Amino acid sequence: MTDPAEPPAGAGIAPAGEAPAGGRVGEVVVALDVGGTGMKCALVRPDGRVVHTERHHTRAERGPAAVVESILDVAEGLTGKARADGLTPVAVGLAVPGVVDETTGRAIWSANLGFRDVPLRKLLTARLGLPAALGHDVRVGGLAEARLGAGRGTRHVLFLAIGTGIAAAHVVGGSAFAGAHGAAGELGHVVVRPDGPVCGCGRRGCLEAVASAAAVGRRYTALTGGPATAAEVVTRAAGGEEAATRVWRETIDALADGLAIAQALYDTEVVVLGGGLAEAGADLLDPLGVALRQRLTFQTEPRLLRAALGDEAGSLGAALLALDTLNRVRRHDRA
Amino acid sequence: MTDPAEPPAGAGIAPAGEAPAGGRVGEVVVALDVGGTGMKCALVRPDGRVVHTERHHTRAERGPAAVVESILDVAEGLTGKARADGLTPVAVGLAVPGVVDETTGRAIWSANLGFRDVPLRKLLTARLGLPAALGHDVRVGGLAEARLGAGRGTRHVLFLAIGTGIAAAHVVGGSAFAGAHGAAGELGHVVVRPDGPVCGCGRRGCLEAVASAAAVGRRYTALTGGPATAAEVVTRAAGGEEAATRVWRETIDALADGLAIAQALYDTEVVVLGGGLAEAGADLLDPLGVALRQRLTFQTEPRLLRAALGDEAGSLGAALLALDTLNRVRRHDRA
Repeated sequence: MTDPAEPPAGAGIAPAGEAPAGGRVGEVVVALDVGGTGMKCALVRPDGRVVHTERHHTRAERGPAAVVESILDVAEGLTGKARADGLTPVAVGLAVPGVVDETTGRAIWSANLGFRDVPLRKLLTARLGLPAALGHDVRVGGLAEARLGAGRGTRHVLFLAIGTGIAAAHVVGGSAFAGAHGAAGELGHVVVRPDGPVCGCGRRGCLEAVASAAAVGRRYTALTGGPATAAEVVTRAAGGEEAATRVWRETIDALADGLAIAQALYDTEVVVLGGGLAEAGADLLDPLGVALRQRLTFQTEPRLLRAALGDEAGSLGAALLALDTLNRVRRHDRA
Repeated sequence: MTDPAEPPAGAGIAPAGEAPAGGRVGEVVVALDVGGTGMKCALVRPDGRVVHTERHHTRAERGPAAVVESILDVAEGLTGKARADGLTPVAVGLAVPGVVDETTGRAIWSANLGFRDVPLRKLLTARLGLPAALGHDVRVGGLAEARLGAGRGTRHVLFLAIGTGIAAAHVVGGSAFAGAHGAAGELGHVVVRPDGPVCGCGRRGCLEAVASAAAVGRRYTALTGGPATAAEVVTRAAGGEEAATRVWRETIDALADGLAIAQALYDTEVVVLGGGLAEAGADLLDPLGVALRQRLTFQTEPRLLRAALGDEAGSLGAALLALDTLNRVRRHDRA
């Protein structure tokens, strides 16, 4: 018996303007978010409910071939776990960092994992016999924040992940833009300080080289000689310490320069701030909002929001990609 | 009799992935591209063939209400001209500068025309009794270059118009992104020289304040005391004149900084350069390509192409918008 007052199953997970995913009783998708350090894995129902999570070490030092083998083993293990629990795994979604071509399902390049053009989607389908989707970690994180998290109900969302690095995802109507070569949204590699520190990418003064969580720690150390995490710099700045205040002020200014550029090019309604640095909460959002406002002239100011899904955004986003793929396959089968 | 080897009517004008517009015998759309100085108008067949053009002065000094009245009169005159020639006008497309909300069909703001939230689409439909579409001049220009011009056959296109101002259109799969508030693609208002000249928007060092055709002339005059157009600066630089060489070098560097930012955020395959400054041809494209290459690290380099449609891109793009709208209306009527 169905209660007509109930929202349909999957309502929360459908992209804007699409019918809800629906899904059948007991169905789950297998989701993996693989980073340089760990793999965050989940079994997720079509309505977005997470029914199981597990974490593994990536052990990237073993080389890319071993990491790929581990990904396939863990994914297979998750389908086994689902079946043992009386559930039916129906698709698999995988998120990885670097340059990712979602259209061909290939991991083109990854600094952390050593991937060079690995056909991960094909490998997953071959091992599991299920429809598979490959996504970029920050883009699927943005997808999850836009559809299930802080950006829910908003059509134009920019998700900015500020951690060891900085990357963004531009999400419109529930889809994240990958670009022509899988490298859209690289706001971390926009030059904001031409005479600033050298970035990992080779250029000088990229936003990531000035304002990532790692850069905040480095700049404080350069100034004081003492080591500190970004979180400690934020705490000390809030306490009035001079060096920390200066580093944090420069960080806010650089981030505001980057967001002003993003707003000029993307014109979004909402900016969702995630990653380690967003843990600073109001100490980040409040001064950043003021600094961004000072930089906008005719542009409409986006609302700044803190990410809502924490470090599960990646695996939830991988699940969303898998569900989107499954829905496409089923629509195609019906047609 | 139809030759099966012939491309279907409208093939050139259909957005990527869609069936061609087709259209019926004798049908035309009315297209207007209204700028601060002039109106470029056309009657265009569904296959993209232009069957009539005319130009009018905008006379913006009369104020926005008079300009709106002129737009409606000129559009009505074009439908009359079409009917007198035995053609059937089936839709109207209008392009204007400024901040344009394509979804609601309203001209939100325009410096040149004085528009403040004018419901142009509704006014056109009321006057002409035809489906109407309102677009942003540079975004529809980008649409035309992507679908009919230099970007034809390419899925991810950035159109950069460098004239009195600088604006860009990001076109993917035959659609241009307007953003949440009709202000996406404002690459001219990205700060590339924090200590540079003050921009018309109020900020210092916007790309437009350094590298528009107008800014090139201004900077040359500031350096030499003598007036010159951007075209003259290019010619003198090619002839080895020192001041012109310096101004042109700085222009290329600023444009390359802007394009490196656009590539980091949009990741396109092709950049189509239009507007007055693109008349410089190889004197612009060759050094700009080299300067952009120096600024890219892990990103894929886009191909730089000169715009193919000249100053008809805007009216052709307005025609494309009108045809897209008409096709939506007809699909809806069939369903």
